[in-house]
Amino acid sequence: MEKSDSYAILDINICDKDSAQADNNHNKKKTSLTTVIKIQRERGERDYIGFATLPEQVHRKSVKRGFDFTLMVVGESGLGKSTLINSLFLGDLYKNRKISDVQDRIEKTTTIEKKTMEIEERGVKLRLTIVDTPGFGDAINCEDSWRVCSAYVDEQFRQYFTDESGLNRRHMQDNRVHCCLYFVPPWAHSLRQVDLEMMRRLHRKVNIVVVIAKADSLTAAEVKRLKTRILNDLEEHQIQVYQFPECDSDEDEEFKQQDRELKAAAPFAVVSSDTVLEVGGKRVRGRQYPWGIVDVENPRHSDFTKLRTMLISTHMQDLKDVTQDVHYENFRAQCISQISQHAMRERGKLKRDSMGNNTDVVFTDTDRLLLQKDEEIRRMQDMLTQMQEKLKASDKKHDSIIDV
Amino acid sequence: MEKSDSYAILDINICDKDSAQADNNHNKKKTSLTTVIKIQRERGERDYIGFATLPEQVHRKSVKRGFDFTLMVVGESGLGKSTLINSLFLGDLYKNRKISDVQDRIEKTTTIEKKTMEIEERGVKLRLTIVDTPGFGDAINCEDSWRVCSAYVDEQFRQYFTDESGLNRRHMQDNRVHCCLYFVPPWAHSLRQVDLEMMRRLHRKVNIVVVIAKADSLTAAEVKRLKTRILNDLEEHQIQVYQFPECDSDEDEEFKQQDRELKAAAPFAVVSSDTVLEVGGKRVRGRQYPWGIVDVENPRHSDFTKLRTMLISTHMQDLKDVTQDVHYENFRAQCISQISQHAMRERGKLKRDSMGNNTDVVFTDTDRLLLQKDEEIRRMQDMLTQMQEKLKASDKKHDSIIDV
Repeated sequence: MEKSDSYAILDINICDKDSAQADNNHNKKKTSLTTVIKIQRERGERDYIGFATLPEQVHRKSVKRGFDFTLMVVGESGLGKSTLINSLFLGDLYKNRKISDVQDRIEKTTTIEKKTMEIEERGVKLRLTIVDTPGFGDAINCEDSWRVCSAYVDEQFRQYFTDESGLNRRHMQDNRVHCCLYFVPPWAHSLRQVDLEMMRRLHRKVNIVVVIAKADSLTAAEVKRLKTRILNDLEEHQIQVYQFPECDSDEDEEFKQQDRELKAAAPFAVVSSDTVLEVGGKRVRGRQYPWGIVDVENPRHSDFTKLRTMLISTHMQDLKDVTQDVHYENFRAQCISQISQHAMRERGKLKRDSMGNNTDVVFTDTDRLLLQKDEEIRRMQDMLTQMQEKLKASDKKHDSIIDV
Repeated sequence: MEKSDSYAILDINICDKDSAQADNNHNKKKTSLTTVIKIQRERGERDYIGFATLPEQVHRKSVKRGFDFTLMVVGESGLGKSTLINSLFLGDLYKNRKISDVQDRIEKTTTIEKKTMEIEERGVKLRLTIVDTPGFGDAINCEDSWRVCSAYVDEQFRQYFTDESGLNRRHMQDNRVHCCLYFVPPWAHSLRQVDLEMMRRLHRKVNIVVVIAKADSLTAAEVKRLKTRILNDLEEHQIQVYQFPECDSDEDEEFKQQDRELKAAAPFAVVSSDTVLEVGGKRVRGRQYPWGIVDVENPRHSDFTKLRTMLISTHMQDLKDVTQDVHYENFRAQCISQISQHAMRERGKLKRDSMGNNTDVVFTDTDRLLLQKDEEIRRMQDMLTQMQEKLKASDKKHDSIIDV
């Protein structure tokens, strides 16, 4: 873990409730529990217990509690990071932005800028935090940028670990970074050294989603080629970006199709725009060139809509779950083993001090016992994973047999 | 915390998947996410971000993961505890019950009997555990019963606390008691001393729901009087039974009405029956008397349906949440302050002893670490055994399907 004071945080709170769509359909979801119970009753009294409403109960509770999500954007200046965020969340988070001149950019270190807004859509409340790294890559020494981003992610984990271990956990806030949008310039031939270094520092602690910025400067063939190269680079350098979870085999065909398309589109080549244009009587966010208009949301023009669907409508909760179950748990395990290593060292020192030289043997024995147990735990963990896979495979196999 | 070995646990696993209603509507919920996205698209492109699907994403995840719930039943023999559980969950958990004779009952101590079944309803999986206290109140000395029930609840909390503090939290099981159905006999004039003592020991650690058993021996006026007296007693002795959460002001009227009725009905006066009778061409669970038939599910005859609605269809998740957020957090806070008090005492001793015999402390630390690891290994062994059984059961199930 790096020092937490190595970056500056600008904390800006924007209350964006007005621009959000407080909807007449607010209650739409609320009635479902009563409806479900009623449907069950109508289905006959004999074969009904009632716990099928449990997902509905969870649903209602989640609406009541509200959601939070933290998105980090990383990439050099001028790639349209702010415009993309504005396009995604229909906000104007960067209204008062002042573009710094070159001298500033060379001298300044990477600063973390954190903006929080509370938005509402169809009665669902979201506390959205955008973590921006405005100076990234502009400075001559990139080492700073890497360190600052990585330290920010760690610091949030550390804060959560402290909160979670504390006595009062009733009002815990989750500020952990759930996703990092990594912007690759369209003029790059593939991932550059600076990109690989940054991703290497982040990929084990945050869900990286790679986007190709300003893709309207690339032809379809060029986009395809760049995507292939990026994917090859990631594989070659063993960078683990966010993996879409497997689609359930019992999903409906439409969902499966959408899932396939999302997976095939990564890394997403995006175009974004703050300008609204009129095309054939329809108002669209777009970019007007002498040779035509780029419609940001047209799936033939860019992957913007796919990125938005993935990031917000279908996989936002999964990004949060992976952050909790994988990245945070890794961080936590490291913390705990550091603590116990420290305790063991202390213990060794104490024993040596109190008993003289011949205690080395005793110390080694205890150590060996602890290590043995650790090994056993690791081995059992492997076995469990194997069995789970077996169970899954067995279910799948039988399903296909029955299908035939 | 009391000693964990002060009660016997009978662990019986019943796989009840066949009797559960694997439903054609399984996919019903699954399509909703696509549907929600589509609706949003149709509503126009401008005013749509997409995070309104978050509750749907949570919903889907919860279905995938499955639910667990642990219900404890407390009350003396002969009050229809088993019959009520069977009526609630349409199971036959107590098929092979052997009713012990009086001599047994006087001598035996209260034993905890734990039964787990996995049931499925409309694609929603529930791992239901019933914790029964068969001998409660039968023995002459009630002190035993109180101690055993209270120790069981504590032991589950302690287990969860150990798991939660461990290194590997990926396969944690929640065996905490989420609700305690407390049976009051209909012939009592109000709560007896034994009831008050038991509740006093439990009300700070588990959600108590009071039921008046065998209410078909009481007239409507008698039920009303007994309910009032019980409520007065609870208030007078400051016993905090499970409190229904406030209903949202923006709920629909039907839900509000149901909520009011549920709240007004507590403590629930129930009648239950394993016998299915025919009343006017309809098959009902009931009890036939020379003067008429008691229809268990008729809200004019008893509060059985209200209890089932509350316990299962509307408040099951809230019972779990209160267990986690209030009762478990209280337990955890006590644990932590005990640990830190202990540590402070140790440190004090260490200081006093200075360079003397401080190896006691050292050993305590190591012991704790080793115990923790042992505990984790034990837990993983349990999990492996369970999974093996599941794998076997799954193979068997599929085999029989294929045979047919």
